[in-house]
Amino acid sequence: MNMTSKLADRTHHMGINAIREILKVVSRPGMISLAGGIPSADSFPTDLLPHLTQQVLAKYGASALQYDPTEGFGPLREALVDLLDETGVQATSEDILVGSGSQGILDALGMILISKGDCVAVESPTYIGALQAFTPYQPRYVELAADEEGVIPESLEQALRDESIKFIYLVPTFQNPTGRTLSMERRQAVARLIQNHDALLVEDDPYSSLRYRGDHLPPIKCLAPDHVVYVSTLSKVFAPGLRIGFCVAPESLRKWLVMVKQGVDLHSCTLSQALAAEYISGGHLRSHLPKIVQLYKPKLEAMLHAMARHFPQTFSWSHPEGGMFIWAQGPAELDMAAVYRLSIQQKVAFVPGKYFYAQAGQGEVSMRLNFTMCNEDVLADAIQTLAKAIDKVAIGA
Amino acid sequence: MNMTSKLADRTHHMGINAIREILKVVSRPGMISLAGGIPSADSFPTDLLPHLTQQVLAKYGASALQYDPTEGFGPLREALVDLLDETGVQATSEDILVGSGSQGILDALGMILISKGDCVAVESPTYIGALQAFTPYQPRYVELAADEEGVIPESLEQALRDESIKFIYLVPTFQNPTGRTLSMERRQAVARLIQNHDALLVEDDPYSSLRYRGDHLPPIKCLAPDHVVYVSTLSKVFAPGLRIGFCVAPESLRKWLVMVKQGVDLHSCTLSQALAAEYISGGHLRSHLPKIVQLYKPKLEAMLHAMARHFPQTFSWSHPEGGMFIWAQGPAELDMAAVYRLSIQQKVAFVPGKYFYAQAGQGEVSMRLNFTMCNEDVLADAIQTLAKAIDKVAIGA
Repeated sequence: MNMTSKLADRTHHMGINAIREILKVVSRPGMISLAGGIPSADSFPTDLLPHLTQQVLAKYGASALQYDPTEGFGPLREALVDLLDETGVQATSEDILVGSGSQGILDALGMILISKGDCVAVESPTYIGALQAFTPYQPRYVELAADEEGVIPESLEQALRDESIKFIYLVPTFQNPTGRTLSMERRQAVARLIQNHDALLVEDDPYSSLRYRGDHLPPIKCLAPDHVVYVSTLSKVFAPGLRIGFCVAPESLRKWLVMVKQGVDLHSCTLSQALAAEYISGGHLRSHLPKIVQLYKPKLEAMLHAMARHFPQTFSWSHPEGGMFIWAQGPAELDMAAVYRLSIQQKVAFVPGKYFYAQAGQGEVSMRLNFTMCNEDVLADAIQTLAKAIDKVAIGA
Repeated sequence: MNMTSKLADRTHHMGINAIREILKVVSRPGMISLAGGIPSADSFPTDLLPHLTQQVLAKYGASALQYDPTEGFGPLREALVDLLDETGVQATSEDILVGSGSQGILDALGMILISKGDCVAVESPTYIGALQAFTPYQPRYVELAADEEGVIPESLEQALRDESIKFIYLVPTFQNPTGRTLSMERRQAVARLIQNHDALLVEDDPYSSLRYRGDHLPPIKCLAPDHVVYVSTLSKVFAPGLRIGFCVAPESLRKWLVMVKQGVDLHSCTLSQALAAEYISGGHLRSHLPKIVQLYKPKLEAMLHAMARHFPQTFSWSHPEGGMFIWAQGPAELDMAAVYRLSIQQKVAFVPGKYFYAQAGQGEVSMRLNFTMCNEDVLADAIQTLAKAIDKVAIGA
């Protein structure tokens, strides 16, 4: 039958996800991947799972398998209060909504906030998963300029002055794709701006627990609590396959998030939530997180060291204090598509930076490099291979 | 801050979910609930969970906790092929998309198919969760007349002739809320109609495994495979808290479902899916399902028996061969709101039928009665209490 005629208007505007296509390439045998955006399986507390399951059954029995309130599993919401407190976010369990990954929270925010044509302001570049969550609701994106210290407040101020912005979406700490962190001064500036303009900020904070050096910075949620929906996830500190995200949102928004979530998936997996509650409240997160940091810290150092040694001087790159990514930028004339092809031939995959922009035609000479999936030796070799590919293309140019 | 100004147009059109409010009443101490639509916790294979977890870790290790393809966990999709085959649906694992509950599948279908104002045809009454999934995409509902044998083909034919129907949504077997099953003749008639009109049917089939008497009927998917998206779930035969639904859809739709699911929740819980794969492929579903049937069959019989004994002759009700619900209808002049209030006072909760219609002003003297949550004695008492409340209101009227 003719399905095309059945599709909604919004569907006709959806494109193929380029990164998904790239990740298919990555799965080829022998490929070394700096392309993914996923945690190392070595970071998961897999050995704990039988114990956690036993504890969950002892405490909650069959109710860990039953339908559950849309807002989230009670004991998990309680446990998240303490976790949030450690990052500086004050919340009661009632303030917290559990979602199916932070992706689920971002989709629900898109659904309740975005009418077709509404302006959403995003960093440039930005997290592609957020664009995927928002785009089906057909917003217009306003891109905010960013540099080494994250989004530039003047750019945000101008956007708030010139446009009617439905909300701003930022990843202030160890951003995906750049690894950059918004400085304290800028956090304060952003907080002032959203308060003065009565603007709404969606602050996505999946990575801040993965800090390998430097000091913790408070979320913007702490500086302007009424104007911020704080979104985070257990994907990087427990296990992404469990699909547990959460947000702290003002009640006037949260009630709508709950209502749409009922229609979208009723509630998130009860068993996952119960395991997560036990992982946090049983003290396992506290003891396991340092192991994750110790796993990733040398990987980041190995990648930075190899880049300093092998990358051409025409390149610059971010020096993240945590997270999962480094962002590298080459000279304006570089043929990044050629670098990508050559690098794939040499069995090293990365994601070209151009895919991380709301509007096409940007980031043509940049690349996102992930360091969580390989060990240090492999990372060093991969960077050397990549640097050779760059050199070869640069000479050819 | 003023959040109302930030909401999308669609959000302003969302209403409070009345059933959710009713279920809050149900949770009061001492309340006997015929209101819920949920499986008994006694039906869950809770004791199997440690074994399933162990098997999952042995087979899949940390990958059971990792990000996973949007389409679903490979071994689960393989296992579902066999499960579908038993119901008569021929599919390869590639044809199957796993969703976050069947709710997740229905939401994704709404997202890819419904533009504002599009016509969606639904039985009258219909499953309220489907309305909740579709309504945010702002369809116009066309209601199809139904009787004891399910939707009336002539009503569907007229709708297909008079309106441009984006898709039809039916629950052909043990429908929620009526418990009714579409007869074989009507299945064939519906299949012919959708083929002749090149129409798309969403066939939701959560209950057909819960058959307590009579013979299995083939899904309409078997009769018109190219015109049907077949949707089902493991919520009633494994555990609803694991949030595992699935669909078999033509490739031309499935590719879009996968794309929107990426934005909505990336993928469904990997661990849940791995447990489900093991539950099915390890033969546990096959041995456990008869226990669920044996658990519910006497409950249904007890409720029907008590209704025959206590309900006034002015009432008629469905006599389901399976599922979780009985639908009862009183005389036109009955004040059902008064029956509801009185029944709640007497600590017996049910859902008034009026909430199961796409358009208001219908089902004013009907009620949905669930029989899965209480034991037989309690069901018999509850029906007697409810019958007394009906009598009292009828006399007062």
